[in-house]
Amino acid sequence: MIIVMHPSATKQNVDHVCDLVREMGLKDHPIVGTNLTVVAVIGDDRKKDGTKFEQAPGVDRVMKVLQPYTLAAKADPKQRSVVTIGGPATKSDTVSFGGAMVPVIAGPCSVEGEEAIIEAGNAAKKAGAHALRGGAFKPRTNPYSFQGHGEDGLKMLAVAREATGLPIVTEVLTPTDVKLVSGYADMLQIGTRNSQNFKLLEACGDQPKPVLMKRGMSMTLDELLQACEYILSGGNTGVVLCERGIRTFEDHTRNTLSLSAVPELHHRTHLPVVIDPSHGTGKAHLVPAMAKAAIAAGCDGLAIEMHVCPEKAWTDGAQSVTPAVLAELMPELDRVAQAVGRSCPVGVTADV
Amino acid sequence: MIIVMHPSATKQNVDHVCDLVREMGLKDHPIVGTNLTVVAVIGDDRKKDGTKFEQAPGVDRVMKVLQPYTLAAKADPKQRSVVTIGGPATKSDTVSFGGAMVPVIAGPCSVEGEEAIIEAGNAAKKAGAHALRGGAFKPRTNPYSFQGHGEDGLKMLAVAREATGLPIVTEVLTPTDVKLVSGYADMLQIGTRNSQNFKLLEACGDQPKPVLMKRGMSMTLDELLQACEYILSGGNTGVVLCERGIRTFEDHTRNTLSLSAVPELHHRTHLPVVIDPSHGTGKAHLVPAMAKAAIAAGCDGLAIEMHVCPEKAWTDGAQSVTPAVLAELMPELDRVAQAVGRSCPVGVTADV
Amino acid sequence: MIIVMHPSATKQNVDHVCDLVREMGLKDHPIVGTNLTVVAVIGDDRKKDGTKFEQAPGVDRVMKVLQPYTLAAKADPKQRSVVTIGGPATKSDTVSFGGAMVPVIAGPCSVEGEEAIIEAGNAAKKAGAHALRGGAFKPRTNPYSFQGHGEDGLKMLAVAREATGLPIVTEVLTPTDVKLVSGYADMLQIGTRNSQNFKLLEACGDQPKPVLMKRGMSMTLDELLQACEYILSGGNTGVVLCERGIRTFEDHTRNTLSLSAVPELHHRTHLPVVIDPSHGTGKAHLVPAMAKAAIAAGCDGLAIEMHVCPEKAWTDGAQSVTPAVLAELMPELDRVAQAVGRSCPVGVTADV
Amino acid sequence: MIIVMHPSATKQNVDHVCDLVREMGLKDHPIVGTNLTVVAVIGDDRKKDGTKFEQAPGVDRVMKVLQPYTLAAKADPKQRSVVTIGGPATKSDTVSFGGAMVPVIAGPCSVEGEEAIIEAGNAAKKAGAHALRGGAFKPRTNPYSFQGHGEDGLKMLAVAREATGLPIVTEVLTPTDVKLVSGYADMLQIGTRNSQNFKLLEACGDQPKPVLMKRGMSMTLDELLQACEYILSGGNTGVVLCERGIRTFEDHTRNTLSLSAVPELHHRTHLPVVIDPSHGTGKAHLVPAMAKAAIAAGCDGLAIEMHVCPEKAWTDGAQSVTPAVLAELMPELDRVAQAVGRSCPVGVTADV
Repeated sequence: MIIVMHPSATKQNVDHVCDLVREMGLKDHPIVGTNLTVVAVIGDDRKKDGTKFEQAPGVDRVMKVLQPYTLAAKADPKQRSVVTIGGPATKSDTVSFGGAMVPVIAGPCSVEGEEAIIEAGNAAKKAGAHALRGGAFKPRTNPYSFQGHGEDGLKMLAVAREATGLPIVTEVLTPTDVKLVSGYADMLQIGTRNSQNFKLLEACGDQPKPVLMKRGMSMTLDELLQACEYILSGGNTGVVLCERGIRTFEDHTRNTLSLSAVPELHHRTHLPVVIDPSHGTGKAHLVPAMAKAAIAAGCDGLAIEMHVCPEKAWTDGAQSVTPAVLAELMPELDRVAQAVGRSCPVGVTADV
Repeated sequence: MIIVMHPSATKQNVDHVCDLVREMGLKDHPIVGTNLTVVAVIGDDRKKDGTKFEQAPGVDRVMKVLQPYTLAAKADPKQRSVVTIGGPATKSDTVSFGGAMVPVIAGPCSVEGEEAIIEAGNAAKKAGAHALRGGAFKPRTNPYSFQGHGEDGLKMLAVAREATGLPIVTEVLTPTDVKLVSGYADMLQIGTRNSQNFKLLEACGDQPKPVLMKRGMSMTLDELLQACEYILSGGNTGVVLCERGIRTFEDHTRNTLSLSAVPELHHRTHLPVVIDPSHGTGKAHLVPAMAKAAIAAGCDGLAIEMHVCPEKAWTDGAQSVTPAVLAELMPELDRVAQAVGRSCPVGVTADV
Repeated sequence: MIIVMHPSATKQNVDHVCDLVREMGLKDHPIVGTNLTVVAVIGDDRKKDGTKFEQAPGVDRVMKVLQPYTLAAKADPKQRSVVTIGGPATKSDTVSFGGAMVPVIAGPCSVEGEEAIIEAGNAAKKAGAHALRGGAFKPRTNPYSFQGHGEDGLKMLAVAREATGLPIVTEVLTPTDVKLVSGYADMLQIGTRNSQNFKLLEACGDQPKPVLMKRGMSMTLDELLQACEYILSGGNTGVVLCERGIRTFEDHTRNTLSLSAVPELHHRTHLPVVIDPSHGTGKAHLVPAMAKAAIAAGCDGLAIEMHVCPEKAWTDGAQSVTPAVLAELMPELDRVAQAVGRSCPVGVTADV
Repeated sequence: MIIVMHPSATKQNVDHVCDLVREMGLKDHPIVGTNLTVVAVIGDDRKKDGTKFEQAPGVDRVMKVLQPYTLAAKADPKQRSVVTIGGPATKSDTVSFGGAMVPVIAGPCSVEGEEAIIEAGNAAKKAGAHALRGGAFKPRTNPYSFQGHGEDGLKMLAVAREATGLPIVTEVLTPTDVKLVSGYADMLQIGTRNSQNFKLLEACGDQPKPVLMKRGMSMTLDELLQACEYILSGGNTGVVLCERGIRTFEDHTRNTLSLSAVPELHHRTHLPVVIDPSHGTGKAHLVPAMAKAAIAAGCDGLAIEMHVCPEKAWTDGAQSVTPAVLAELMPELDRVAQAVGRSCPVGVTADV
């Protein structure tokens, strides 16, 4: 870190800061400039709260230099991880994130019932998607709204998997449910509202299923990668990041989909990056264009909300596309993927 | 809700929307304007997901009319609740939020050790604060940072309460810890990162201690009040709201403290509103001015981070004031409180 | 507009609002719901300040229904305008925005000198770009920074046009310079900081050259389209919109490039939409991915900062790509364009 | 500035950066840390675009150290400027910003007519305000809305000044109008949409009347102070800053009033700081609380929109208070001011 002193700081102030640095077990290196002095701190200060130096007399501010994550960081600039879900253990297709193929996870926001999720699964499969999503545990802003079918919903998802062969992705809300959800799902989803629910992240680190880690709606990329360290440091290396829109002043969408997160995350981390254009816009009519843009930006997968009849969906109707729209979109996604050296084959299982 | 049709919508489109409205058990009321048609929906649609109408052909957008919360709403414009913590049960001072007196909760970010929290408690007491805060369970952005002393930290807080008479406020992170924390604390704190951890909110609704409910850093006021419904609907009426800064583009502070939340929340809800100028700015030198401003804006309490030696604090050093700064601030707060018809007496216990 | 009354509003309050509506020459239509009353206002209220109704007793809030722009709005859902720059009058290539071809405007942030801009122009041409950008009048955040060569810079641009055949795009800062800049440029640029400099917009409406209208960094799309009305209502129909990143909390980029603006603007307006991935990210290493994403999202052109030696650029070095990067990118852009039914041919002039 | 190298940067990369630094006439000081190398740059780099170093191979990012403004900066921590408007030259009261007294500028958004502005002026005077505001040139988002009476409006303001003795504050929109407005007004206002209209700022630096410089709605404090340098460096030292709300995701207000700007600006600059709670919230019912909060935060003045009949105001009705509300507020403001060692006397002229 770099500690910037005020122009008016005294030599005594600088000496005091240097003392504090050494007390922390780090090495101080003061540099006297023409307008002010800075103290460069040498050593690994990532686990230290350096901002407290701002309280020492004469300090103007503290600037961090080191990236605050380690397991999520790249060992070398070309490192990329591949995360695979499904397969023989759940008698489902094998789907990989981070390889040449860009898989599409599709399905309704909520598991509304067994018939409904089977119908949705079949529609997703027929349209060409590679995995099935659906919420059994729903985090609802309003306590009086439908909260999901819980374990029954998980069972319905498992039936839909059996019917379609599509691996299933579903959200988990609380640490005590992690084992239960892990027993059914091929991939656990951490929702945007739980992106800094650290106890939940820890619990997800202590089970074997890959995790789709959604970015918090006001999280920086550094914070996202630090949140992943909670999962990775538990021994679970199957982490896939998901940008799903951030909260800004914009009012033409529910969120602002920040696609620059794709190349920047690829620059910082080896973890695959999935884009969710449904939550990322909140408007079904914007989903196709943003799905294509996401693939052109280099994403490693898409999560798209699809409902057999959006105008009657129990949740997230406004942002769900119909099976017909998805079926029309899939070959377009493949064309864009091909244009950037990837593929998004219609209904073909990924090979690692 | 109001469903706005496109200027190009057909009569058939409008009729279809009206059918959907009636299918939901609500009453449709179409109004043909000079440029377009809107369909007013009559009935209580608060528990319905109205945005899905945006998917019906010819619909431009849906605008909500009703407030999405009920227990947090005011029965009449003057209704105000008073929430009291401490008292005989924990042999501590009784402190009330929402009355004429504006209490100050002060203390360190983390409980660093028994001696440290007793020293901090004594300093807070001496400076004139009315309750003691300190974290035993710490939600840390970085998994390698200090995570709090856990139950040991709760015990240390209880010792500090005994030593000072100040009721204690401390954070709870996960549903399974709620009973434990509730057994020690006078008031449970829900942190900004857990503001939409609905399972945790539910658990807090099912225990008797009042809850200090922090606003999420990108939460609207409507979302905050809906989150409170999770606690209130469980039967716990002791909810105190806390604005602690929102995430914006500003870079001179860690967060933007949005003080207009005070009069607007008083306009919408009967629940008391506390301001946290420490997290709300992230900079100790801004805390006194913002604490005074908060009281002038009409807040019902303050939560201020104070550390005996901020430059050596384990956590949040940059935003913690010293006991000396707090001692100087307390009489100023009282003067501002008096100026707006309230009081913030130095070290005097609140009476309901 | 819809005027939402408080649940506690009296019949008298509603009557008073209805009176006010009629005084404005509009028609009132009150609807009594189960929880509250709303007053639908019938008639064209776009030029009226409806928010003032919020001051009438018993009014909760006012919701706008009509789009506040007319000339920028689409007459029918498929309407799209084509804006053409260059051509015989300036002896330059003809380039069109809004057709099947997606042109690329490339060049340095500032015109640094005659030789420099000719070198840059040749490099842009060789890489395959279709128009040349460069600033003669520079809006600089810091008054002590280089402010551009002014009219001399315009002359240098004209020389570069003659040398390359590329039409030139350059910024104008103030109404009194509009004629001057219009005399040299093929397209005038309105910068993000002047996006609501209404006198400048008016002046641009009163000259014949097309205008590249950049979105303000905190402008909604409705505000952007209203700003365009200042130009369009002056009689100049040659308006091309440009999304160049918005200001959010994100810190991995200088701005957040909001690509959903592309499909949404195409939904609302017939005007072509250009994307500027250079300002939109502020980081050269993110430009190629975002340029490809922009084309996949359906944009009608790109504006890319390119400098012969970015590490020595006078301005915007951090976000300028090299000619080599641009040359590598151009065929990729064409492949993505082809995948979505467009083209971005390397160095081929557009045909309307 | 500090140039942070990638962990993977080579010695050659570092040497190249050091060469570039020396080429700029600055001194390089590389520091080899345990994880990476940083290059501290010594010398005054405020007028240089340092971000371009991010393009040199092996550079991760560039961090600025020096404040980018000089005339607005404080020579010593206690320096405060006082800016005075009105006085014998315009036969109006003398009002000062930055002294012990906190003046209130009140008046309508627009000058609607001569009678109307005289009535408003008299009402403001009677309520106890110290200066009169009113727009003759109105920057309107919508081109079809009322744009102000122009020079006629200025004349009406002058008549109202004569009638009331209140000095007048009014907005100027374009450089060519600066002399005209300066001839009538006691203080020129730069609106939020023109906060980076640098040609206008320059023109305001070249005339003698003090300037009320509104912060742009998405401007950082550093950018605000740099914008002021355009005025200050022209020789006009009469600059008063005005925080008027920033654009965020919040939806309960039109803008988020960021009161922490008051203590932070006082920390960085000697210039006085005024708060505009009307634009800062956009809601009249929030104005009184935020006006009191602003004074408690230490502001040097208030700008409050007041209209004789807000529900019929031509512009900004929703955020204008009535004369009765202002008259009730003024003594409260004085009580809060007294509590923080200032004063805001009802209708008493300021003495420097």
